[in-house]
Amino acid sequence: MSFGDRLAARVAERESQIVLGLDPDPIRLWPDAVHAAPAIGSAAERAAAAVRVHCAALIDAAGPACVACKPQLACFERLGAPGWAALAATVQEARAAGMLVLLDGKRGDIDVTAAAYAQALFGATATPFGDVPGLGGDAATINPLLGRDSLAPLIEAARVHDAGVFVLVRTSNPGAADVQDLPVGDGTVHERLAALVGELGRPGASGLADVGAVTGATAPEHLSRLRELMPAAPFLLPGIGAQGGKVHDLAAAFAPGRAGGLVSASRSIARAHEADAAGHARPAEAARAEAERLRAAAWALA
Amino acid sequence: MSFGDRLAARVAERESQIVLGLDPDPIRLWPDAVHAAPAIGSAAERAAAAVRVHCAALIDAAGPACVACKPQLACFERLGAPGWAALAATVQEARAAGMLVLLDGKRGDIDVTAAAYAQALFGATATPFGDVPGLGGDAATINPLLGRDSLAPLIEAARVHDAGVFVLVRTSNPGAADVQDLPVGDGTVHERLAALVGELGRPGASGLADVGAVTGATAPEHLSRLRELMPAAPFLLPGIGAQGGKVHDLAAAFAPGRAGGLVSASRSIARAHEADAAGHARPAEAARAEAERLRAAAWALA
Repeated sequence: MSFGDRLAARVAERESQIVLGLDPDPIRLWPDAVHAAPAIGSAAERAAAAVRVHCAALIDAAGPACVACKPQLACFERLGAPGWAALAATVQEARAAGMLVLLDGKRGDIDVTAAAYAQALFGATATPFGDVPGLGGDAATINPLLGRDSLAPLIEAARVHDAGVFVLVRTSNPGAADVQDLPVGDGTVHERLAALVGELGRPGASGLADVGAVTGATAPEHLSRLRELMPAAPFLLPGIGAQGGKVHDLAAAFAPGRAGGLVSASRSIARAHEADAAGHARPAEAARAEAERLRAAAWALA
Repeated sequence: MSFGDRLAARVAERESQIVLGLDPDPIRLWPDAVHAAPAIGSAAERAAAAVRVHCAALIDAAGPACVACKPQLACFERLGAPGWAALAATVQEARAAGMLVLLDGKRGDIDVTAAAYAQALFGATATPFGDVPGLGGDAATINPLLGRDSLAPLIEAARVHDAGVFVLVRTSNPGAADVQDLPVGDGTVHERLAALVGELGRPGASGLADVGAVTGATAPEHLSRLRELMPAAPFLLPGIGAQGGKVHDLAAAFAPGRAGGLVSASRSIARAHEADAAGHARPAEAARAEAERLRAAAWALA
């Protein structure tokens, strides 16, 4: 069953298009997670333990309203080897909770290196001591600046594992315009990237392809055109909440079905309790309520 | 002392512009490294231990002919947490050997995430349990597809630590043409990226800036134009050897001085012994000889 079909089935089953972003900042973890860290060990080990507990609590609270989670690799890497172990544990937590795992690392490199990233993200690495499993992601975000031959090893490895990729096409940050919106012929760089994504993906029985696109929710004016260029691609739409995007601007994404638009939110869920000026909101309850609010809002659109 | 000045000084001191690429593949390690791995532990732990010994041996053999080493992050990440620990240890080995460390991860993301990558690469991460140090790189490769606001946090963090960045401008793979060579106005995408690099870098007393560019050695026809657009940027020139680039094509890179062009080579050094058809060459001796051959060839050009 291809990634597109798996995604469509999971969205239908969980009645959710929400992707729970996991961007743990060690100084803004939920208090219970900090208290749960061991009293001994290096700062990295203790912080990574707290991050792991925080992510597990977030998955427990908000996960039921979400179809997938999206760990931000940078946030784990900065804690070194213990951080990487916390990432691997968090992937397992999410899978046990029935969520798909979209690894957000935006990797991209020449072919031999792209193949090494694919081993880390989806596959395994052969060694003289036996195979070393990678993270086992259901999908990963990838960067297309190095062109088609840099994407191929990642797409091929993903396919072998019924996984998918989300190629950066038009991101959610203001600076996205600097390169992605440059004019090329009668279009733009991001339209060229979109055409490449449209060509590389293979639609499954659901009509949804296994090569998706990152298309920021902060630039909804581009979504109709991008949907034309990538009729079968699932769109990953970051930028809801903290970055200013609104769910109701995203309807164009859902043309190929509900799973055509995945709405990603991180800080707006994990820090929902901070919106309570009185400071009485419990993090888990606030996160659960905000994830459910986003879920219902998106589900009503498509 | 800025990164540009540190780089210029180190090149002069070591009389070398060669960057030793560290792309360890667990099934192609030097035999002594495999034998040195512990007899117990998980496959990941044993393979990471072998990778660490391999990299240390490569640094010991080829390091004296090189100014820097360039660990490929993908090759360590695929071994999970033990791989990340091997990466951190390898960085320390290289520094102890007097080499600069260029972390090759080609990271790039929105501002808050770019800042997290900067903590992992150059800085430290504040946690309730104390600061967690990052890898301590002297420089890192970064991907500019997300534009100026995605580069700024990495450049600023690098500067605080007298470190630098190498922005992908025109890479060494065939597919680089797909996006980087797209026509924009009367130039190309890669010329726009070059102009951005030229603008973001701050030249030090040596005349060399702290924002460099990755400009593949396999496309030397672009180097003169790129040098015009980035007069002070150090160029990182991968693609020598295994990817087909030749040292004598690179003279334009050295216009701002010898440190203006760093010649990166990985497989051609680590696997130099495989060129001996009789199979008698020792890996360390062959690596040392190939690194010295490249060093002398590049030094003679500039």
